[in-house]
Amino acid sequence: MTQDDSASPRRNRRRPGTTAAADMAPPRSLAYRHVVNPFEPLRIYSDDQVAAIHDAALTLLENQGTKVLSAPARLRYAQGGAEVDEATQVVRLDRALIAKALATTPSEFTFHALNPELNVPMGGRHLCFAPTSGPPNIMDTVHGRRAGTLEDFQNLIKLSQSFDVLHTLGGAVEPQDVPVHLRHMEMTRSQLLLSDKVPFMYSRGSAQIRDCFELLRIAHGVDAEQFRARPYVWTVINTNSPLQLDIPMAEGIIDFAEAGQVLIITPFTLAGAMAPVTITGALTLAHAEALAGIALAQMVRPGAPIIYGSFTSNVDMKSGSPAFGTPEYAKAAFGAGQLARYIKLPWRSSNATASNAPDAQAAYEAQMSLWGALMGGANFMLHAAGWVEGGLSTSYEKFIIDVEMLQMMAEVFQPVGAEASDMALEAIAEVGYGGHFFACAHTMERYRTAFYSPLLSDWRNYGTWSNDGARTATERAATIWQETVARYSAPPRDPAVVEAIDAFIARRTAEGGAPPQT
Amino acid sequence: MTQDDSASPRRNRRRPGTTAAADMAPPRSLAYRHVVNPFEPLRIYSDDQVAAIHDAALTLLENQGTKVLSAPARLRYAQGGAEVDEATQVVRLDRALIAKALATTPSEFTFHALNPELNVPMGGRHLCFAPTSGPPNIMDTVHGRRAGTLEDFQNLIKLSQSFDVLHTLGGAVEPQDVPVHLRHMEMTRSQLLLSDKVPFMYSRGSAQIRDCFELLRIAHGVDAEQFRARPYVWTVINTNSPLQLDIPMAEGIIDFAEAGQVLIITPFTLAGAMAPVTITGALTLAHAEALAGIALAQMVRPGAPIIYGSFTSNVDMKSGSPAFGTPEYAKAAFGAGQLARYIKLPWRSSNATASNAPDAQAAYEAQMSLWGALMGGANFMLHAAGWVEGGLSTSYEKFIIDVEMLQMMAEVFQPVGAEASDMALEAIAEVGYGGHFFACAHTMERYRTAFYSPLLSDWRNYGTWSNDGARTATERAATIWQETVARYSAPPRDPAVVEAIDAFIARRTAEGGAPPQT
Repeated sequence: MTQDDSASPRRNRRRPGTTAAADMAPPRSLAYRHVVNPFEPLRIYSDDQVAAIHDAALTLLENQGTKVLSAPARLRYAQGGAEVDEATQVVRLDRALIAKALATTPSEFTFHALNPELNVPMGGRHLCFAPTSGPPNIMDTVHGRRAGTLEDFQNLIKLSQSFDVLHTLGGAVEPQDVPVHLRHMEMTRSQLLLSDKVPFMYSRGSAQIRDCFELLRIAHGVDAEQFRARPYVWTVINTNSPLQLDIPMAEGIIDFAEAGQVLIITPFTLAGAMAPVTITGALTLAHAEALAGIALAQMVRPGAPIIYGSFTSNVDMKSGSPAFGTPEYAKAAFGAGQLARYIKLPWRSSNATASNAPDAQAAYEAQMSLWGALMGGANFMLHAAGWVEGGLSTSYEKFIIDVEMLQMMAEVFQPVGAEASDMALEAIAEVGYGGHFFACAHTMERYRTAFYSPLLSDWRNYGTWSNDGARTATERAATIWQETVARYSAPPRDPAVVEAIDAFIARRTAEGGAPPQT
Repeated sequence: MTQDDSASPRRNRRRPGTTAAADMAPPRSLAYRHVVNPFEPLRIYSDDQVAAIHDAALTLLENQGTKVLSAPARLRYAQGGAEVDEATQVVRLDRALIAKALATTPSEFTFHALNPELNVPMGGRHLCFAPTSGPPNIMDTVHGRRAGTLEDFQNLIKLSQSFDVLHTLGGAVEPQDVPVHLRHMEMTRSQLLLSDKVPFMYSRGSAQIRDCFELLRIAHGVDAEQFRARPYVWTVINTNSPLQLDIPMAEGIIDFAEAGQVLIITPFTLAGAMAPVTITGALTLAHAEALAGIALAQMVRPGAPIIYGSFTSNVDMKSGSPAFGTPEYAKAAFGAGQLARYIKLPWRSSNATASNAPDAQAAYEAQMSLWGALMGGANFMLHAAGWVEGGLSTSYEKFIIDVEMLQMMAEVFQPVGAEASDMALEAIAEVGYGGHFFACAHTMERYRTAFYSPLLSDWRNYGTWSNDGARTATERAATIWQETVARYSAPPRDPAVVEAIDAFIARRTAEGGAPPQT
């Protein structure tokens, strides 16, 4: 008797406990250091519609402009040709200024890591996954949810260093046990000593940025001029939607542009709250704000490397709660990708969820975010691992769930062979009618690397899984992150460099550090 | 101070407990009865490669052919012009015969439901979601995992009837408490009386199919000739890969084709087990087997409606366990969609996972399956709701998780407006710098239907969610399925029809029913 599909008893008869090759199979090499997306990006707008949205954003910047709270930034805008009203702090930019800025913004560049093998190409079809950045809280299934600490921050750096599919570091979680005037240095020190991947820095005022840049120069052994010549670090600039740029964000744009470091300019536009209730309206507003930030950076230094950031989602109109990984989020991602490509900039998206736990909702909302961003052609995926609770917590278990999902996506992007040998007519002839392919020559030649080997997914049959504790994916993830942290080993670092870093921090600490700009 | 993205404290200040419009907002109307996919399907093969795979499958059918265990089916093949070797039971088909069959297979048709508003268009960009079909076991978080019963089967029909996004019924779960010689009639009766959506039937031999067709004719009030003129029901034909067609499957093809009912011909090809270890090899084999089945159906009745089914995944090469929702599964879906479009047939895919529980793994594997199938252009998504454990169980909670994910996908397919009013420049001017859009006119006009309103996702803040029991998505799904079953009401059915159905079943029961063909 044949039933539908896999419920067929025949399948079970065909499913051996082990293959002929079972015990010999080594784990598959996880070569995820460089991921390239082979697919044509999906589109929700026609070319004309993309041009019309861009034009509407230009009109917005010409007529309404944007409020800029930083006087030095307004001065830069004025020097660059913008119309500045000091009484209202409003800056208006005509379309010629935007066109001029876009003409000097590079479409591609490369992040330089302490380990050159971990350099990250940006733009084109290249794809970079960066872990979660910014949550104040940490959660795990053992200890629950609490304020983030330096230990958590360092654990997340260790996890980020341990998986090839994460290409840069990120803000991970806020180490709230470190005083705010020293925190920026400790976060930078941890990244530089625990990892050799490209680090992240907050833009919390010029004083902190100066400290962090100096630490980077020490680590890389470069002087200020060499530092300016190559991107070594990135920050995120969030505008205060709608149409407002605050002081630390403006300082971040100026300081990073001057230093030739990477700005991810990301208006955070929640449709129905800080942005229009329509996806297209939220994207129009976000596009205008991004263009204003890009213009400032290019006025400071033509050619400053920038990633066009989008973070458009919607709120629950019943409660006002922000939502992520929604259908609207995926569609906004498709549209934002089109706008980024229209102005020829690398594009940043995010792996987001509103779920309060690393559960099925977290997984399906993250998948909606991932597919939306990746099918939309994202180059830089922020919050790729660990984000939960709308960004208010980092979850250790979600980190592992995300790494599994990122590796799966990286595998989807691997090409499929379509030569005669891939079609396998000889193997089919060898096996014959109703036979099996477990031990045929075609299989034996390829089985070791034929398929993705999972980190987290459990494919054992129900009885085996159940007898082994019936552990859910979230429970298994708890084991994996703890084992990964325990197994971590630091990359080599010249003791003289460590000494110089520590000496710099000791001196700056004695000088009072640098409180965040507000 | 501005931090990255949503962790910004500013966001929280902007997040009100309720919007101006909170209490007035009605739940969004869920108009998911007809879903159309607006996106260009993704491709993993070039046009030349698709043609080459098709050609390889034709070569396979000409040279090696397929073993056909049913003598009447071999006779049909011989009458249709195939080369039949009775000694080996092997049927060889030359490419002209396949071309002739494909010339008469319709590219589009319509399923007719008891409620004409629930008719299902098939082909083109139309998309149909069908619930899980076939698992022998049922599981829920209250009672655990056990053999399926008629009560479970009927509960799943009630759930399927309750959600617009499910467009047909399915085998749901095997009602193992009904004797096998009567089970086909009870399953059909339950579908016809508890729902007015298009039903599903197994192909377990001609005797059972005759009974089920008669029940359908009674329900629809049509005679045999009228019945033959329109598709009312569908079945799944699984070949015994590699290259074997068994007796009940062959009888199913013949009986359904003669009656003009819909065959979903689906080789179940697990790469590395019953199919070559390469995705392209597994698809080549599956394509050949599907073509052989399509040819038989068209020899029986030119124009018989067929859906090209694909179910290509891979096994874990270490254990031999089948895996679903893998990267290979998604890529195979993209490729199968290309093959279906090449021969101009509607295409069936599946929402599959190997997870043993309705957990995060179940969600992310299902999402990989869904995006793979839907971005690949699937027309018919079988196992769309409820499948877990590689098809050996149906999970009530997974059913709800899946319905949420299907609704989200249906929303992704809704068009995005890009008129001037969607760009919202006037609203942006009204709100001003740093303001919010909660109460502006543009929002008030649109908020009721602006966004997807979730069935399962919980977007409340952590404190509210935690104080309310900190229930995971899986725990919430348990409440939702039970409430939905409790709230279900049956569609109206003419008492005379019910009487006739029951009279028929009573007579056939007295005659001994019909044991399944093996």
